[in-house]
Amino acid sequence: MAEFSLIDRIRARTAARADIALGIGDDAALLQPQAGLQLVVTADTLNSGVHFPPETPAADIGWKTLAVNLSDLAAMGAQPAWCTLALSLPDAQEDWVDGFADGFFALADAHGIVLIGGDTTRGPLSLSVTAMGQVTPGTALRRDAAQIGDDIWVSGTLGDAAIALRAWQGGTLDVRGPAEDAQVEHLRLRLARPTPRVALGRALVGLAHAAVDVSDGLLADLGHICARSGVGARIDPACLPLSAAARARVGDTHARDAALRGGDDYELCFTAPPAKRAAIAGLGERLVLHLTRIGEVVRGQGVVADGSESGTTGYEHFL
Amino acid sequence: MAEFSLIDRIRARTAARADIALGIGDDAALLQPQAGLQLVVTADTLNSGVHFPPETPAADIGWKTLAVNLSDLAAMGAQPAWCTLALSLPDAQEDWVDGFADGFFALADAHGIVLIGGDTTRGPLSLSVTAMGQVTPGTALRRDAAQIGDDIWVSGTLGDAAIALRAWQGGTLDVRGPAEDAQVEHLRLRLARPTPRVALGRALVGLAHAAVDVSDGLLADLGHICARSGVGARIDPACLPLSAAARARVGDTHARDAALRGGDDYELCFTAPPAKRAAIAGLGERLVLHLTRIGEVVRGQGVVADGSESGTTGYEHFL
Repeated sequence: MAEFSLIDRIRARTAARADIALGIGDDAALLQPQAGLQLVVTADTLNSGVHFPPETPAADIGWKTLAVNLSDLAAMGAQPAWCTLALSLPDAQEDWVDGFADGFFALADAHGIVLIGGDTTRGPLSLSVTAMGQVTPGTALRRDAAQIGDDIWVSGTLGDAAIALRAWQGGTLDVRGPAEDAQVEHLRLRLARPTPRVALGRALVGLAHAAVDVSDGLLADLGHICARSGVGARIDPACLPLSAAARARVGDTHARDAALRGGDDYELCFTAPPAKRAAIAGLGERLVLHLTRIGEVVRGQGVVADGSESGTTGYEHFL
Repeated sequence: MAEFSLIDRIRARTAARADIALGIGDDAALLQPQAGLQLVVTADTLNSGVHFPPETPAADIGWKTLAVNLSDLAAMGAQPAWCTLALSLPDAQEDWVDGFADGFFALADAHGIVLIGGDTTRGPLSLSVTAMGQVTPGTALRRDAAQIGDDIWVSGTLGDAAIALRAWQGGTLDVRGPAEDAQVEHLRLRLARPTPRVALGRALVGLAHAAVDVSDGLLADLGHICARSGVGARIDPACLPLSAAARARVGDTHARDAALRGGDDYELCFTAPPAKRAAIAGLGERLVLHLTRIGEVVRGQGVVADGSESGTTGYEHFL
């Protein structure tokens, strides 16, 4: 299959948006940003064997490739709009490309984000997305806006993806799924099909001060908020939201450790003034999403969990 | 070297722009597009061993990574603004990253395009850029706007990069350069350090109807204009602009073939009405850039060179 038919195959799956004057097929796309809004731009790459097990199904890879980028837009409170995709493939198999597109466009269509360009090249399997969204100027959820006295919140449950990854490494979880055991399948999906919290991010505009998505691990990502805001954080590990599947699989102690240090959950961690507690609780009910208060922003620096200064910085590539 | 210090090392090299509200360091960047303009977005990837010889110096890789994307913006007539970079590296060597940054930012700073985000991951050497520019609505140089009777023009000289690549494959050109022979060095630089024709693209707004950059080969790229515009093209191979170095190296016949079929030159091919000939000639003088009329847009389809229908479509990956 030639590069151009590969592109055609992907282009045939793209939806329309009124603000796209020219989509895939020219030297570049032409877009009409909404007057007065700021542009929000992020880029994330997934490499086979580094960011996902090599045997991961194509549809899951497609989903996750977009999900990790939508998660960054969510963490800014942005409304997703357009994206580009750089797809490096060792060979061009129609089945693989169609499967990839199934996952990618299922998530894209759900969030109204449209693929407007990209590149397909021959090479080791690697996927880079640049995602663009829009936000009213001055309202984005930045990492540098946490204030002393803010509550610290997280969405959903933490640690599931790390536990699933460890189970795969230990040979007790097949990423090709589905697993017969419902709890194992829950963990597998948390790793393979993370849910970007886009609606939450949008709704937090005006409620939250600072936000970050949990991709490298809670301690590391909350640490970014602390560093950029010039504050410290104190969290209570006993409050961390753990899934029933995580607790059943590895027990409370290990589940809590995975929640602190594990990455890849793509939940949002955000800070908000205590006066917003009722509004945030109401938001969680409206979105049918657990929002858990896990600590507070304090003077100082770094993240303190359980009273002891944490030196953990989560997962860094190249360490 | 950890991922974060790698990012810091790159971030330290980025310039400022008044329209960047928030650059590298958060979940996403915040940009303020100029009111009323359209956004122009393109994405291109370079993989080691596919798009450049593995022994290419880091600075040349940095330059070319950005150049191929600026070339796409140029082909739309856009003013460059911002870009993201996804950098996959097998290991994190400070020297390599600094060299890469030397080439990348030399070109970025020359064109006022600022890196506003990206990702560094461990993996086989691969570089993906998404470049963003701006253009007045309705003025972009599209592939679908060629008109019957238009002249067909190309900038600079064609075939140099393909001849350099073939010389490297044949063991007679060292991409690490510089070469002692001035003509060989000219060819090497045409491959390693292509010049995106940004000023030309900007100036062609209002003069040219359609444009494309020559990345896959003239026949293939002009073929894209024909296909999208629903027209044919007739070009005279005797008119093709060849460099003295190309002619000296492989002779006129092979140089002409390289000009027709070779990719990677990143010159612009554009169509314009005959009434604009004097203006285009004046533009070439002002930019000190050869602009050569090589044929005309005709009824029909496909590119005819030298009277015989050409079935060649240039270089396609996966063929």
